[in-house]
Amino acid sequence: MSDATPPSDQPADATPPASDRVRLRRKPMRGRHDRETVDAIIDSSLIGVISFVQDGQPYGIPTNVWREGDRLYWHASAGSRLLRVAAGSPVCVTLHQLDALVLARSATNHSVNYRSVVVLGMANLVTDAAHAEHALEGLIESIYPGRWAQLRPMTEKERKETGVMYVDLAECSAKVRDEGAHDNEGDETWPVWAGVIPVQTVRGAPEPDEFVQPGTQEPVVRLP
Amino acid sequence: MSDATPPSDQPADATPPASDRVRLRRKPMRGRHDRETVDAIIDSSLIGVISFVQDGQPYGIPTNVWREGDRLYWHASAGSRLLRVAAGSPVCVTLHQLDALVLARSATNHSVNYRSVVVLGMANLVTDAAHAEHALEGLIESIYPGRWAQLRPMTEKERKETGVMYVDLAECSAKVRDEGAHDNEGDETWPVWAGVIPVQTVRGAPEPDEFVQPGTQEPVVRLP
Repeated sequence: MSDATPPSDQPADATPPASDRVRLRRKPMRGRHDRETVDAIIDSSLIGVISFVQDGQPYGIPTNVWREGDRLYWHASAGSRLLRVAAGSPVCVTLHQLDALVLARSATNHSVNYRSVVVLGMANLVTDAAHAEHALEGLIESIYPGRWAQLRPMTEKERKETGVMYVDLAECSAKVRDEGAHDNEGDETWPVWAGVIPVQTVRGAPEPDEFVQPGTQEPVVRLP
Repeated sequence: MSDATPPSDQPADATPPASDRVRLRRKPMRGRHDRETVDAIIDSSLIGVISFVQDGQPYGIPTNVWREGDRLYWHASAGSRLLRVAAGSPVCVTLHQLDALVLARSATNHSVNYRSVVVLGMANLVTDAAHAEHALEGLIESIYPGRWAQLRPMTEKERKETGVMYVDLAECSAKVRDEGAHDNEGDETWPVWAGVIPVQTVRGAPEPDEFVQPGTQEPVVRLP
């Protein structure tokens, strides 16, 4: 939803956008171009949507994404369309997290609080085996710190069946809304509830499969 | 994450895909092409990513989406890039919901349980004022049943500042994973925890703004 009455037309941070393509045009006060904000959103996200183009048609495919340094990684089956079509082509990776519903006294001023990131760039296919395996370790570790070393080691066949890709975090921007409702002047007395309803993603109790032995340590989980 | 050992290579439903573009190639047993499954995922989702192409570059923009009948709607500021560029052009709308983390005894067999939908089509800009207002009512009602009639009515100016778009639900598919971990034969005795950790999106207590009068009824909320 959109909402009115921006408190400021100025970006929230002093970092200029890397390009005009990632400059926030609408509600620029919600735009953040500093890597600290971008990285924090990426590092707290499990899923991203990889958008690519085939025959003029855009496709947006949700998949696990993770960051190492200045690169945003994802993986795909070696024979998948995501891998075949996207490799070497321009992509957009989009991450979003919902933090709250924002209810105003007019429809237009309803909104949501969220954090989102958009990354533009060329999709690079990792061709070096050591790089690919290191990246896949990063995927497991980004969600379950310490788990990689506990797992049955990856086989050569498994590694070959998994395509690893990344995009450089050179051209990216974040967008953050974290406020209450902004009603138009005069609307405050309209007799309807207005405010914020927080939204959170929570994990339930781990459900072991039938082969887990009594006393086995439960996994450390960092995400979501 | 990917995972191995599919229980079947057959699609989970008997409905054929609307086109080859939305046929699930990888793990076809997770593909659903029946509208009942697609609609249920859309109707339980608040946010979708709209992918469109400008100068060969794909962009994926997260925004509120909602359904009415055979159409998937979203809205954008009248002057926004999302509206200007996407209108009349091919788009992809992607929705995804995470339901669980799936931990196996090898890295490759890790996965997540999820429900996702991909819709392909042309983005239509609603030009009829009554259609646009009816659609915006649908947005509010899809999240807060009964709220539209309680709000300060939308002004002509507000309506004009809000662009409403939709894509027909003609070419779409869903993908669903809802299972435990599948370890390779022989991996079951590897001494590490494996199983499923459920993930849920929950709402916190509503936080009224300073103008809400005592005794005001709290909103009915359907999503997320």
